[in-house]
Amino acid sequence: MSSHAVGVDIGGTNLKAALVGRDEGILQQTTCPTEAEQGPEHVVSQITGLVAALSDAAPPDAVAGIGIGAPGAVNWARTTVSHPPNIKGWASVNLRSALQSRLDNSLPVIVENDANVAALGSAFYGAGQHVDSFIMITLGTGVGGGIIYQNKIFRGSTGGAGEIGHMTIDHEGPFANSGVSGAIEAYLGQKFLTAHARDRIVNHPESTVQELVEGDLEELSPRVLYEAATQGDEFAQDMLAWAGHKLGCVLGSAVNLLDIRTIVVGGGVSAAGDYILDPARDVLPRFVTPGLRDDLHIYREELGNEASLLGAARLAFEGEDAQVGTR
Amino acid sequence: MSSHAVGVDIGGTNLKAALVGRDEGILQQTTCPTEAEQGPEHVVSQITGLVAALSDAAPPDAVAGIGIGAPGAVNWARTTVSHPPNIKGWASVNLRSALQSRLDNSLPVIVENDANVAALGSAFYGAGQHVDSFIMITLGTGVGGGIIYQNKIFRGSTGGAGEIGHMTIDHEGPFANSGVSGAIEAYLGQKFLTAHARDRIVNHPESTVQELVEGDLEELSPRVLYEAATQGDEFAQDMLAWAGHKLGCVLGSAVNLLDIRTIVVGGGVSAAGDYILDPARDVLPRFVTPGLRDDLHIYREELGNEASLLGAARLAFEGEDAQVGTR
Repeated sequence: MSSHAVGVDIGGTNLKAALVGRDEGILQQTTCPTEAEQGPEHVVSQITGLVAALSDAAPPDAVAGIGIGAPGAVNWARTTVSHPPNIKGWASVNLRSALQSRLDNSLPVIVENDANVAALGSAFYGAGQHVDSFIMITLGTGVGGGIIYQNKIFRGSTGGAGEIGHMTIDHEGPFANSGVSGAIEAYLGQKFLTAHARDRIVNHPESTVQELVEGDLEELSPRVLYEAATQGDEFAQDMLAWAGHKLGCVLGSAVNLLDIRTIVVGGGVSAAGDYILDPARDVLPRFVTPGLRDDLHIYREELGNEASLLGAARLAFEGEDAQVGTR
Repeated sequence: MSSHAVGVDIGGTNLKAALVGRDEGILQQTTCPTEAEQGPEHVVSQITGLVAALSDAAPPDAVAGIGIGAPGAVNWARTTVSHPPNIKGWASVNLRSALQSRLDNSLPVIVENDANVAALGSAFYGAGQHVDSFIMITLGTGVGGGIIYQNKIFRGSTGGAGEIGHMTIDHEGPFANSGVSGAIEAYLGQKFLTAHARDRIVNHPESTVQELVEGDLEELSPRVLYEAATQGDEFAQDMLAWAGHKLGCVLGSAVNLLDIRTIVVGGGVSAAGDYILDPARDVLPRFVTPGLRDDLHIYREELGNEASLLGAARLAFEGEDAQVGTR
């Protein structure tokens, strides 16, 4: 079993990569701008540069492979990324063959959806370590998710499982970007949550939020709400509790379907921590059938972005373990 | 590989059992009243009688084992049923040991939740035969469900997965029996669907339904709606379309989470067929994120109750196949 692997996270703004030790976690980390506007060829070159530098930093023959977390759809064979949002002109790119030919080596390259990769990182290095199965939900610009079942990513029929952000909690509710009415993303997506707070603050001239944004409501964000909440601002606390309530509703639906009762919450908006998670914990059992109400837990993933890099590297360790017949 | 197995379906009113041929399906079927009011000991005796008769009817040494579909919670080891609704005084009964001691043989006994068993029957003998993975939803007194993933029952963490009937489509909607607000069962459960139609028919004196129930709205049922719909009654067609619309909404949520795109609909209310299923087919894509909208299919399970008996027997075949390492 190789001791090292390289994990890559493809973001719309920045590319990140890390050299990961199987037991130690992240040993070395590096980043560069994605420069998505220069097209997929350029992005692949950028990735190749990061990976080459980190591979060289590892002991000789110690690298199990390269794991990549990518936005957009990943094919069942885990080679190819199609239509990632935010990367112009990227129709469909086989990252495995592109990287293998550029790196001129035969290291395995495994690609996986970025939300699934974050869940895998959580499973082996983060808040999900102590359970076999959990539902990961990431609250950021959008709302993403992944399912870890018996320590593996549950991929569904084509590799697209875990799209919890598009589950509806109100079939006649507001539309999310996906066009799904009442999808949880239409409440918790950063843009939607912010818009809701902006609408509501009109009746709260006393709120600390007004001072924090210095009168410019364009500056209102989940981060500002969190800051105001920690200062005891009731309006901000109410807004985050409203979000947590919605979160609990959708998680209830997911628990009913999966009988997976541990939930790990990641993503930028999860920085609001218990201001969102406590209301979600309160409401969750009310949206779960009585037979599945025991042992419900909602944890926050504290690893932040590192979950993705660790999970990406984990893909490579798993690939190797499957080859040698261990696990 | 044994050629035969016995499947049992524990209902609140009747017990059913069948001798099933691995390739032929149901060879012989038998039933008796559950007599649930006489308590679990009596019910177990009734089951034993059915199983003994069918085992005797099989060729010598041809029976792989006994599979049982039961309402209520089934433990992870598939031996024990707890708190089945409608069977008074049944707290927790280990059916495997109870049957093995009474039958005085060592045939394997495998117990599974009844909705999961119906899904397994569909997977190997019914509408689910041609796909590896599908979501089963049963529309009856309640709304149940099961998930078949890669030809196996997806059991979740404790064996309770597939409770699609308790997923919400409106977090501020009406309560189902489970106490979940806006759970799909609160719209499609037989009692709820009937109550909705009864409320609405007041404004439709012209409806054929009025004649069919001879003025007694207590007689209104999904079956009556279906009958009226086939006679061209617009009110009845509208009611079933309303139900189908709700069905499509909840199925959308399930598809988003699982990336399983084939749905099989069973249970008594599914007899209304395309009057419910066509509206569900229309609405389903609108509740699925664009990346998962291709290849969505909703089929009706035509096997009826036989799906449960076939699925129960299939449990025994699977148990044997796992033992001998084939399959």
